[in-house]
Amino acid sequence: MSNAPSPTPDHAGIDDHGGSPFPIVGILGGGQLGRMMAAAALPLGVQVRFYQDDDTGPSSAAAHVITAPWDDVEALRRFLDGCDVVTLDNEWVDLRTIVELLPEGVHLWPSSNTMALVSDKGRQKDHARALGLPVGSYRVCEDLDAALRAGQELGYPLVAKRPRHSYDGYGNRTVRDEADLRAAHAGLAGEDGRLLLEAFVDFVRELAVVVARRPGGEDVVYPVAATVQRDHRCDAVEVPAPVSAAVIEGAAELARRAAAAYDCVGAVGVELFELHDGTLLLNEIAPRPHNSGHYTIDACITSQFENHLRAVLDLPLGSPALVRPAAVMVNVLGHREGSSSAASLARALSVPTASIHLYGKHHVRPGRKMGHVTAIADTLDDARAIARKAADRLRL
Amino acid sequence: MSNAPSPTPDHAGIDDHGGSPFPIVGILGGGQLGRMMAAAALPLGVQVRFYQDDDTGPSSAAAHVITAPWDDVEALRRFLDGCDVVTLDNEWVDLRTIVELLPEGVHLWPSSNTMALVSDKGRQKDHARALGLPVGSYRVCEDLDAALRAGQELGYPLVAKRPRHSYDGYGNRTVRDEADLRAAHAGLAGEDGRLLLEAFVDFVRELAVVVARRPGGEDVVYPVAATVQRDHRCDAVEVPAPVSAAVIEGAAELARRAAAAYDCVGAVGVELFELHDGTLLLNEIAPRPHNSGHYTIDACITSQFENHLRAVLDLPLGSPALVRPAAVMVNVLGHREGSSSAASLARALSVPTASIHLYGKHHVRPGRKMGHVTAIADTLDDARAIARKAADRLRL
Repeated sequence: MSNAPSPTPDHAGIDDHGGSPFPIVGILGGGQLGRMMAAAALPLGVQVRFYQDDDTGPSSAAAHVITAPWDDVEALRRFLDGCDVVTLDNEWVDLRTIVELLPEGVHLWPSSNTMALVSDKGRQKDHARALGLPVGSYRVCEDLDAALRAGQELGYPLVAKRPRHSYDGYGNRTVRDEADLRAAHAGLAGEDGRLLLEAFVDFVRELAVVVARRPGGEDVVYPVAATVQRDHRCDAVEVPAPVSAAVIEGAAELARRAAAAYDCVGAVGVELFELHDGTLLLNEIAPRPHNSGHYTIDACITSQFENHLRAVLDLPLGSPALVRPAAVMVNVLGHREGSSSAASLARALSVPTASIHLYGKHHVRPGRKMGHVTAIADTLDDARAIARKAADRLRL
Repeated sequence: MSNAPSPTPDHAGIDDHGGSPFPIVGILGGGQLGRMMAAAALPLGVQVRFYQDDDTGPSSAAAHVITAPWDDVEALRRFLDGCDVVTLDNEWVDLRTIVELLPEGVHLWPSSNTMALVSDKGRQKDHARALGLPVGSYRVCEDLDAALRAGQELGYPLVAKRPRHSYDGYGNRTVRDEADLRAAHAGLAGEDGRLLLEAFVDFVRELAVVVARRPGGEDVVYPVAATVQRDHRCDAVEVPAPVSAAVIEGAAELARRAAAAYDCVGAVGVELFELHDGTLLLNEIAPRPHNSGHYTIDACITSQFENHLRAVLDLPLGSPALVRPAAVMVNVLGHREGSSSAASLARALSVPTASIHLYGKHHVRPGRKMGHVTAIADTLDDARAIARKAADRLRL
């Protein structure tokens, strides 16, 4: 159904608690992360409000949505008025106007400082290295010549990334030789010509850890997950990661240090590489609920989305403990271009122990995250079989 | 914030799927059960829409709410237009107009036939007895004289109930003698003078079982719970009930038979008495998600709310299995009259393994259900201690 913002009478109502004693969290961006925040807000009595520039997205299920351009000062003012705190659904939001309009005493979490440090992946890496966090070799190249020099220094193959707005296989490419690199620079470099080159890391597996962190630094660390990538996209997440206790401990500690290094508040996704000798390298962090933490909705006492809300509201954090020994989350990606379809839902639901999550996206395109499936069980094998079976039946 | 229905542009948008492929469930009534249905609908991609006659209630968090009187034909038409199925938040909704307006092919679940059989507790008992379901002795008394005769036949003490609109200690009273009975009749009898008298049942404990049932009769039965009552109100629910395997089996089977006897579709709460010899008696059924099943949100693979939505949409049902060996749910009731407050939320959240559920009610009154707390653990003792600790900290 249409979720177009309704006119003034409704939005007049948005501008105060209307006698409600419950806190209001403003969410910038209307994607699936915001939608899952909204689901987590309901039991807490927390009210959420979305600001988005597109009304066909997942947040359409929320009570209060303003759809307007990111630079619509009047609409942003209406959105901000009455919010107790403001948070993000994604890191692509242009925060400049919002930071100027933020009312006295209303925090934006993650802060604009944190976002400035992480949203450019070159700057994010520089900051990690400056603070002594272990990262692989990389170069931030200002132009093609610098990139070609870096290619010789780092050696091939390597991974080329657009410094901004690269995610889920968009803006990333593996580069095997100089010709590849020229093509990558032409295709990926930002408008400023900058390109991030990362030396190929010969890792055993990729790990991911979600940390939830309050303004004062109190945090909880979720179980260490192994992420299974396909085409630079997260295909599945398996918990607990099948690694040694030492690696688990090291990964959890590195994740905590990383979340603190960027002064993150809220949920933070920390991606790591595990090398053959057990060494851990920091890959990337995202200062928000993370795809690698979607399993926490069904598998943990407190989900990453609930702890994100608790953290940005500076409320005590809940337990990240698993409720069953093992959990597997499988992403459901689009396979075609067009209007999405829920016709396959019944077949997926006929796997009785799978937990199906659809994001309510009206449009599908190849590789777009349309939903996910989680299964919890006594073993990873059992959880994997259940989640995969249901996910394979979904064709959105 | 205000949840007043917004004017035409928004409600025009309510009248079709607006290109969304996801089913729309219309919910009559805007209480906490509807709110928890809305939370369960989000991951499924199912859209919910509320019709209520009061805009300060729990459903205020939903995207699409129409607030209008139950007999507003024009508003009801707008609400029904586009719904794939219609269900109930409570059994007090006057269905007469709705049934007349229901579009071709759009089902109301539970059906008006089911509601006619259960909403009058005298008729509900007559139906159970007629179908051979075990019920205690009772009389439906047409007037005071009949009630006094029934008192002599059934003996004192007995329980007097208003045949309609009695719940949670409202409209129920224990009657110890004839004077009590005269007072009870004066206070409880419906406008038609009718009063339901039930012989006092000397039970060991009260049990409750939630069944979810599809139109074709496919069902799932949730674990058998023990309910702890205080002042005719449900104080706590403990799962699994500490009873013999035979009683578990008998209770589950009786609950299934009861749900079928009333042709229920959706989640059904079935309340039972366990007698000293292990005999089970049917107490009451409610053809909707039930307070005794709130634990399923945090403690089961699929919650009663998700299975209610699946059932009314005639989709495959999910597993009702517990994710941990034990679960305890404690109701959070109002202790005063006035505007509610979330000031105690932080103290409750500081019990890290408790799951807090607030219903978003703006107004509190003594005995009103304001929320609940669930804890899951390896033992009932552990779960009870956690849930009670957090619930005791909530003063809404």
